[in-house]
Amino acid sequence: MQSVSFSRRLRRTPFTEGVEKAGVKSYTVYNHTLLATVFDSLESDCRHLKDHVQVWDVSCERQVELLGPDAGRLMQLLTPRDLRGMQDDQCYYVPIVDSTGGMLNDPVAVKRSENRWWISIADSDLLFWVKGLAVGLKLDVSVREPDVTPLAVQGPKAGELMARVFGDAVRDIRFFRYKVLPFGKTNFIVARSGYSKQGGYEIYVEGGEYGMPLWHALFEAGRDLNVRAGCPNTIERVESGLLSYGNDMTLENNPFECGLGKICTLSDDVGCIGKSALQRIRDQGPKRIIRPIAIDGPAIAGPREPWSLFSGEIRIGQVTSAAWSPDFDTIVSIGMVEKEHCGAGTKLEVETPNGRRPAIVQENFWI
Amino acid sequence: MQSVSFSRRLRRTPFTEGVEKAGVKSYTVYNHTLLATVFDSLESDCRHLKDHVQVWDVSCERQVELLGPDAGRLMQLLTPRDLRGMQDDQCYYVPIVDSTGGMLNDPVAVKRSENRWWISIADSDLLFWVKGLAVGLKLDVSVREPDVTPLAVQGPKAGELMARVFGDAVRDIRFFRYKVLPFGKTNFIVARSGYSKQGGYEIYVEGGEYGMPLWHALFEAGRDLNVRAGCPNTIERVESGLLSYGNDMTLENNPFECGLGKICTLSDDVGCIGKSALQRIRDQGPKRIIRPIAIDGPAIAGPREPWSLFSGEIRIGQVTSAAWSPDFDTIVSIGMVEKEHCGAGTKLEVETPNGRRPAIVQENFWI
Repeated sequence: MQSVSFSRRLRRTPFTEGVEKAGVKSYTVYNHTLLATVFDSLESDCRHLKDHVQVWDVSCERQVELLGPDAGRLMQLLTPRDLRGMQDDQCYYVPIVDSTGGMLNDPVAVKRSENRWWISIADSDLLFWVKGLAVGLKLDVSVREPDVTPLAVQGPKAGELMARVFGDAVRDIRFFRYKVLPFGKTNFIVARSGYSKQGGYEIYVEGGEYGMPLWHALFEAGRDLNVRAGCPNTIERVESGLLSYGNDMTLENNPFECGLGKICTLSDDVGCIGKSALQRIRDQGPKRIIRPIAIDGPAIAGPREPWSLFSGEIRIGQVTSAAWSPDFDTIVSIGMVEKEHCGAGTKLEVETPNGRRPAIVQENFWI
Repeated sequence: MQSVSFSRRLRRTPFTEGVEKAGVKSYTVYNHTLLATVFDSLESDCRHLKDHVQVWDVSCERQVELLGPDAGRLMQLLTPRDLRGMQDDQCYYVPIVDSTGGMLNDPVAVKRSENRWWISIADSDLLFWVKGLAVGLKLDVSVREPDVTPLAVQGPKAGELMARVFGDAVRDIRFFRYKVLPFGKTNFIVARSGYSKQGGYEIYVEGGEYGMPLWHALFEAGRDLNVRAGCPNTIERVESGLLSYGNDMTLENNPFECGLGKICTLSDDVGCIGKSALQRIRDQGPKRIIRPIAIDGPAIAGPREPWSLFSGEIRIGQVTSAAWSPDFDTIVSIGMVEKEHCGAGTKLEVETPNGRRPAIVQENFWI
């Protein structure tokens, strides 16, 4: 068990003070930023998330802002998802691909207006790709990382807690929509979204100085709701089938392999950079695909590097995220499996650090 | 003291097995890759580095390969350093800037030929910037991360150890030059370079399968040289004035602020993207500059976020890296100081987590 070496390069956030006072035990690094991973234990953090409400410092979801006359055009160049019908209060989960169709990131795009977008990114410096394209294509758009740090409120009591701080208007926010709501003398974008399937919100805190005041306001308002500091929980995220860029897919993978083909529009009038590569992949069909896989117990720490999947003695894929699930009494996992072996019920074996284990491809994720 | 949460997203390397067997105590994350920071203690690791020889897993210096007819042109677009005189066995330290002159990375470029370059990067996804430019400008070049992981051999006995493994040819390699030398049935680029001032080499290991065989060969050959596993050492690096991207400078800074103006050629015939912005900065002079700063003891852990520097009650800069130096009996540090306060001997104060301390701007770094 190695400790984290702290330095400026592993950025602290407006909420780190609160996270540390709450007793964070482990960190990962995500977009050059500290992200808590465990407070009590993975299992008890998961139980609490499913029963109550948690406040998550997800500042590591850094924003890339596109601002200017070409912002909308640039945004559509980035993704094969058709953005034409998107309204000014919508958030879209958007695969971002390079010219070969490889995944560069899988962020959430927040449309402020046709000329102003925020991209709430997964773990890669998407800023660099977007800036490079904008410069190379001589687009009339500024691209920067604004001082915006998301704070998530997740769990079944999230609506009640958020209503106490932001008013009943939060209850009317539809899934993957947002409202601009007041907090003290400022306003935040409050979206119905988050990296769990327990329900909740993400507050895009603009101005780091509002971070701890908002943190304290949520904890004071939620005392009787048993509010706690939390973080994305590996058990819950794998049960829910929420993918993690860098874990479950990389630049080596395309959206079809990630099960995202259904949100790719590859018609001539949608101008994504990777379109022709993706059309070829679609026509041939992906060779492998992300699937939920149940692995026999006992519990084991999740993969530090991919665990190979075998059909007999032939390697046919790999498991990239896994965790023991107390609720489903199995090791839940996410793997990339060759197409011929990806059908529900297929019996495989997985090579873990504790030896080979039986594994079965599932029909659906666990939620 | 928080532990590291391991996952595939924090990439292991061909040498991680050796690093862990050697008893690594702390990690940082650098280019989505594990980088050891401490084996015994910062102080004793530093002493050993200065007296003997260490093998460092610096796989986190990921490579960006430019390959194709436009590779040389693209490489020059990336940096204000004039590459025209560069020979096919040279390595150059190259600031990489965006169109505003902001630093995107400060890697070492390794010229294989005019049509093939490796860029050995600091901690940002430079791959994304280079790919974005190449696509936007429709250049005839492929840009990718090859399977190349550098292993550094550093310290006063590095020449002797390297000669035992790669032959006496290593002794003829000049500073920031390389030779292609055999190892078993393959060849590696072996450069005279590294992230310390104790002398040494970097081996660009092409093919992860050669990682541990090379690691073992070095340890077997160096037993009587007291070879150990090591890593970039914060004390030695700060004493030596080796900058760390993300710590000592960010996108907010330009090469002139980083003291790199002398390697920027801003004439019309050098086609760097940030040239006109850098010309303006050069003509106006930078407002602040990186300086070595001695801070009064006692010892204190280095900054997790910048420590403000004051002249009286006025904030005039910040310290971004610092460590207690047993050899120089002071806290050595790197700071960014406003130009009017950056002269050698200027007395300042620095706000540390343990209170304000006297600090003095130095004429030179400590080596």
